[in-house]
Amino acid sequence: MSIRPRGRQFFNNPGPTNIPDKVLRAIDRPVLDFLSEEFLEIHRACFQGLKRVLKTEQQLFMYASSGHGAWEASTANVFAAGDKVLMIESGYFSESWTMMCRKFGLEVEVMESDWRHGVDPAAIEQRLRSDTAHEIKGVLVVHNETATGLSHPVKDVRKAMDAARHPALLLADTISSLACFDFRMDEWGVDVAVGGSQKGLMLPTGMSLTGVSEKAMAISAKGGGAPRHYWDWREMKARDPQRFIGTTPVHHFFGLQASLALLEEEGLDAVFARHARLARATRAAVRHWGGLNDTSDPTNGTKPAQGERGPNLTAAINGPELYCRDPARYSDSVTAVLAPEGHNVDKFRKVALERFNLSLGGGLGPLGGRVFRIGHMGDLNEPMLLGALATTELAMKVSGMPHRPGGAEAAVESLAKD
Amino acid sequence: MSIRPRGRQFFNNPGPTNIPDKVLRAIDRPVLDFLSEEFLEIHRACFQGLKRVLKTEQQLFMYASSGHGAWEASTANVFAAGDKVLMIESGYFSESWTMMCRKFGLEVEVMESDWRHGVDPAAIEQRLRSDTAHEIKGVLVVHNETATGLSHPVKDVRKAMDAARHPALLLADTISSLACFDFRMDEWGVDVAVGGSQKGLMLPTGMSLTGVSEKAMAISAKGGGAPRHYWDWREMKARDPQRFIGTTPVHHFFGLQASLALLEEEGLDAVFARHARLARATRAAVRHWGGLNDTSDPTNGTKPAQGERGPNLTAAINGPELYCRDPARYSDSVTAVLAPEGHNVDKFRKVALERFNLSLGGGLGPLGGRVFRIGHMGDLNEPMLLGALATTELAMKVSGMPHRPGGAEAAVESLAKD
Amino acid sequence: MSIRPRGRQFFNNPGPTNIPDKVLRAIDRPVLDFLSEEFLEIHRACFQGLKRVLKTEQQLFMYASSGHGAWEASTANVFAAGDKVLMIESGYFSESWTMMCRKFGLEVEVMESDWRHGVDPAAIEQRLRSDTAHEIKGVLVVHNETATGLSHPVKDVRKAMDAARHPALLLADTISSLACFDFRMDEWGVDVAVGGSQKGLMLPTGMSLTGVSEKAMAISAKGGGAPRHYWDWREMKARDPQRFIGTTPVHHFFGLQASLALLEEEGLDAVFARHARLARATRAAVRHWGGLNDTSDPTNGTKPAQGERGPNLTAAINGPELYCRDPARYSDSVTAVLAPEGHNVDKFRKVALERFNLSLGGGLGPLGGRVFRIGHMGDLNEPMLLGALATTELAMKVSGMPHRPGGAEAAVESLAKD
Amino acid sequence: MSIRPRGRQFFNNPGPTNIPDKVLRAIDRPVLDFLSEEFLEIHRACFQGLKRVLKTEQQLFMYASSGHGAWEASTANVFAAGDKVLMIESGYFSESWTMMCRKFGLEVEVMESDWRHGVDPAAIEQRLRSDTAHEIKGVLVVHNETATGLSHPVKDVRKAMDAARHPALLLADTISSLACFDFRMDEWGVDVAVGGSQKGLMLPTGMSLTGVSEKAMAISAKGGGAPRHYWDWREMKARDPQRFIGTTPVHHFFGLQASLALLEEEGLDAVFARHARLARATRAAVRHWGGLNDTSDPTNGTKPAQGERGPNLTAAINGPELYCRDPARYSDSVTAVLAPEGHNVDKFRKVALERFNLSLGGGLGPLGGRVFRIGHMGDLNEPMLLGALATTELAMKVSGMPHRPGGAEAAVESLAKD
Repeated sequence: MSIRPRGRQFFNNPGPTNIPDKVLRAIDRPVLDFLSEEFLEIHRACFQGLKRVLKTEQQLFMYASSGHGAWEASTANVFAAGDKVLMIESGYFSESWTMMCRKFGLEVEVMESDWRHGVDPAAIEQRLRSDTAHEIKGVLVVHNETATGLSHPVKDVRKAMDAARHPALLLADTISSLACFDFRMDEWGVDVAVGGSQKGLMLPTGMSLTGVSEKAMAISAKGGGAPRHYWDWREMKARDPQRFIGTTPVHHFFGLQASLALLEEEGLDAVFARHARLARATRAAVRHWGGLNDTSDPTNGTKPAQGERGPNLTAAINGPELYCRDPARYSDSVTAVLAPEGHNVDKFRKVALERFNLSLGGGLGPLGGRVFRIGHMGDLNEPMLLGALATTELAMKVSGMPHRPGGAEAAVESLAKD
Repeated sequence: MSIRPRGRQFFNNPGPTNIPDKVLRAIDRPVLDFLSEEFLEIHRACFQGLKRVLKTEQQLFMYASSGHGAWEASTANVFAAGDKVLMIESGYFSESWTMMCRKFGLEVEVMESDWRHGVDPAAIEQRLRSDTAHEIKGVLVVHNETATGLSHPVKDVRKAMDAARHPALLLADTISSLACFDFRMDEWGVDVAVGGSQKGLMLPTGMSLTGVSEKAMAISAKGGGAPRHYWDWREMKARDPQRFIGTTPVHHFFGLQASLALLEEEGLDAVFARHARLARATRAAVRHWGGLNDTSDPTNGTKPAQGERGPNLTAAINGPELYCRDPARYSDSVTAVLAPEGHNVDKFRKVALERFNLSLGGGLGPLGGRVFRIGHMGDLNEPMLLGALATTELAMKVSGMPHRPGGAEAAVESLAKD
Repeated sequence: MSIRPRGRQFFNNPGPTNIPDKVLRAIDRPVLDFLSEEFLEIHRACFQGLKRVLKTEQQLFMYASSGHGAWEASTANVFAAGDKVLMIESGYFSESWTMMCRKFGLEVEVMESDWRHGVDPAAIEQRLRSDTAHEIKGVLVVHNETATGLSHPVKDVRKAMDAARHPALLLADTISSLACFDFRMDEWGVDVAVGGSQKGLMLPTGMSLTGVSEKAMAISAKGGGAPRHYWDWREMKARDPQRFIGTTPVHHFFGLQASLALLEEEGLDAVFARHARLARATRAAVRHWGGLNDTSDPTNGTKPAQGERGPNLTAAINGPELYCRDPARYSDSVTAVLAPEGHNVDKFRKVALERFNLSLGGGLGPLGGRVFRIGHMGDLNEPMLLGALATTELAMKVSGMPHRPGGAEAAVESLAKD
Repeated sequence: MSIRPRGRQFFNNPGPTNIPDKVLRAIDRPVLDFLSEEFLEIHRACFQGLKRVLKTEQQLFMYASSGHGAWEASTANVFAAGDKVLMIESGYFSESWTMMCRKFGLEVEVMESDWRHGVDPAAIEQRLRSDTAHEIKGVLVVHNETATGLSHPVKDVRKAMDAARHPALLLADTISSLACFDFRMDEWGVDVAVGGSQKGLMLPTGMSLTGVSEKAMAISAKGGGAPRHYWDWREMKARDPQRFIGTTPVHHFFGLQASLALLEEEGLDAVFARHARLARATRAAVRHWGGLNDTSDPTNGTKPAQGERGPNLTAAINGPELYCRDPARYSDSVTAVLAPEGHNVDKFRKVALERFNLSLGGGLGPLGGRVFRIGHMGDLNEPMLLGALATTELAMKVSGMPHRPGGAEAAVESLAKD
């Protein structure tokens, strides 16, 4: 980079996220023997604390890996090659998970959707009812699709499964929802919850986790699933208290201990309320940039048109607009913004980054170039968000992206009322 | 504090200032023997780099002390009890410096001023011309009055002294101007330049410095000045290369080495341009909050009314206004804002800090309660400033401070043009 | 721990190892977008630097995982269920690797050995010559067996394979040898070299790597190997320049950049010489504790007795002795010490840790209780090692472990001559 | 330095000292407004904690300065030019304090001594009795002379003053004793206790302190003493709760909070016992190097010969020997070692530093070249000390300094019994 902008970088990628200073400092310490009592105390506290975040009293396994590793763990322990699973389509990440499953020989049936609306639980129920032979072994859903800023209601997926009296396992990817907004593993009947360190847990990338129900654990324990070792729950459980295959990544635990302390000091409900408040302010800014307000938003609450499916890049207005069209499914951790037709977001993002030191997410897969994403999860407060939004507007102005000025003020107004 | 707000604190006090991560990390290292060659390399590089910042090739002394210590050093080495000096009144800090001088028995003649306009160099010239006996041994000026956001033109003070052919020493307090905006010790004929670590040098409080002309050095070397040891230039010079009385504060040097590297990487001119740009944006926001714009500002360019002197708290408008009334003297490192009559800034500042984690400066001395200050010096960029300004507006809204909404947008607009 | 000892912990576990302050500080920085040019510069530099450490110009893949993950990657890309491989037995870690292979359905033939001597390359050559059908697809060898302090000559294994004109792949686990002592991937014809972050690379646990020959890469690229995704070289190579499945662990790269800089500043040859020097001093201390010296060591250069195999815990003397009996195979990164008969090392290690803050490794698997291990790899110098050795002696004295006093002096003497 | 040694530097200078990681990390955080409640909580806790370390319930003032600044504060507040004080000679630092006093016009009468034995309290009593006019306003004593490793009994100085019914103030420099070994300000009747941050408090250089008795405070409050501002107790007390002239050095407080926590967690008595234990081990090593043991040490308990005074560099044996000759006055924080006649310590110290990364203190003033000093204060434990002592021996061997090998073992033995 020829011009390196000054000051602190505003990091509003939708994950990895800002790591609080206290967490960075906690990681910045000499190593400990992972078998020492001094470390095992930290280890125990982290397992217990993380279970409270997942809201589970069942099994928890962590891995030295990114979230994709936890995806492999989630399926390798319970599904064997040839098993059939139902993937709820949400966008880039449900597609990636699908691809991963297929590489291990699973038969993945994708329940397709318009990415701007997602799947209707009623359709899930209907599909499961039709599976009278119970060939479907698992229902896989991305709780929060990081690529689109749309959240699927995991609780309603469970209701649909129960209504269909279907015995499949429910797997939920909570990577970008956990510790950002409400997730309740046990209450919602989730069998495998997949999480990562680098989002709401505010840690560096490199540790991931799965909450595991006793039902799922039993499959793994009986030798079900696919060949595995690094991800093997049986093996990990046998290695209590350490529960890791290979050397335990103690530095991630040092960080996790600190981030759990921050979450508990604030309180999970307050954490969720803060995310919701900041997310509303973000959407207020985006609507304002698009010349809209809450009541005038033409995309608000629309149903997907007949035949619409997959990425849908038709812009409704000549300004930035919310990619997600269903207010009930707006994500509280990330907002994806669709640029007006004919406008590429890459130049704008480059200006934001290289001139103003604001890092925004780009569009993934088919959304590349047309969508940018504002992450608002983890270690974030009002001035951090307002600085990001005002600078987003500054970068739009400088780079010629059409917009109605005043988005930062709209966010201020939203926050003042909130 | 019952509610501890989350996320990063926005620190917009006008000093101490934000310390860049690279500087904090540079300080975060084991100690070194201050007599070791490894440390002396760092020491030499810091002295050389700091001289480039001061724009001097004369003497430089540093102290383990805050800026007030450097004030003592600046006078103790060159003035003895009974000596007369002329203090250019600027506000709280010129008053503090005056008090300090008097405690050491100096006779301080204060050249009084309206704090919102400062002193006219012509008046200085006139006073010096009248001092035909050259009883005045020194002219003392605070380059940037941190309490009011007004900068006195040191260069013009020198011109006035030269025009009056007066041999007094020129002492300038550059604590909140150095490395923020233009200062040229040698070119401007400054005999003693006083600086501190915690402003434009972006370091923790605790190290201070004086640039010293050969003329001033000669006085100290000949045994002039007051009794002294800790601040004694003679003694310090004799202790080359270490130049400290007592143990050298190596950790401040670790930080200084890193902050000088940042300043040099960006380039001093770019650093100054950045401060100017951010300062203009800040003033644009304040004017907007007050219902004004650049051309409509009634305070712009006014001369002090007959008899106005000292702190002048008469608000011209029913909204926030710039405390400094002379555009030629606006500070690029701090903006003091006068609240409308009848409005106390303390509640507003408390809301900003405790609810939104934004730390703003209060009014000092007689400005207490009526003035708040936005620091915009040191490690700052557009999103940091915009976050602070937008949150200032949010706190005004929440706390009931009258203002015209849209200040953050005005700052965005200013930055987009700049 | 009821009594928490003061001061810095001496960490002489044989991995993870001491992390230099510069590396910890490099990791202690805010996150970067892993797709940003600023990060990709770091990424490129790390890949290039690590290839220089591996001494390869072929392929390199890194993983967010511990070393066990890299083991899975090393076999999953080139071997399918049912493939036969030959494992050179060295101890606990060759056994673990064997178990892992078997879980993926590989047929593992173990070339057995006395763990205190290891396998003779001539025996490998003989076995490969007898495999005329070339059923053996790979030869797997742990370069440095961390559990026993014995290093197998990888170069000679390659020679044996070549002499037998056998086309099997050569896989070497370099986890505790890389950047500690000589390893040359390309020159020695290694097809897959497995490494981890937490040993000679002086990083936190959580990143691992495989150097991959073009021959091995071709197998993966053609779809050979086992089902895989997270470890899939095909997929990773297709994702140039990022080369990671899922989010890149940028903080490990921040650290790696710093540790590579340290290695290059010192020079790999100097790094190896330092390890060799410190290892010799360690062995001198151990021999002295056992009442021996270099020439009197009865275990020195002995051949395994007829029928000896596996862990061999028969102590030759009534004092601590080197577990490894072949001087040509002494490890320069870890020394395993066998306690005299009837003495358990656990009490002694507990005293060392809890009273004197010295962390030593215990015996793994069948060596538990009878062997302790002194790690001397990575960020270590003379006073660090001497502090560890003198404190080891202090802990022996306090805990009643028989020994001849003077081991620390023997180490001093060794270092003075070296 | 052409060869930069690897690994952690062993820092055994007798101050500044090792800073624990927890303290460095505590300092490594963003700035706080020094007037904010969040900071004032830390400030209060530090003042209270430090008073417990000083064992005083009277006044405490801290300064942004090194210890020499606190010296100035200690005299400027209570003595005016022309006042007479009695300085107990101990070595380099009593001489420096004397020079400082004289620069401020005090009349300093030095009670001379042989530096290897110090002053007899009986002589102090006698001198004070003879001062019937009470012309002596203060008795000044360096509790622990860092240059020689000799500690004067402050308690006995007070007894001598009381026995003489003399009203002078008692000032004690505790810079290198505080938090290392017993000091009790109130119980021992010390009027001004001078301390610094960089020794037993384990902080970076740059903060200093004075404990002040109500008697001394009254003098300052009534306007006694010399002209002063930066050090002025009156002014500082008036600025409660902040108690600083100028900006408070918040980062030193962040560190102090952490170091006080460490001291309190261990317990001051345990801290003192640890220092005593490590000091005994150090002296055992030195005696061994000199061919002596506790009973054979010819210097042990000798009285100064007639006429011996000042630095006394006559070596008694042909090996390293303890500089301090009075066992009752051995310092528990630093050991000064006299090299045999004809041997310069500088080459040896250079080898220790540049080849083995061990930093030892040199001889100050007239002891230069003939004495080296081993600091053993602050953040130190057994392996740290043993590493330093064994490496000292290694450097002696390599550099040709005569010594009997085995000092490290003697230290091990001492520690095992202790």
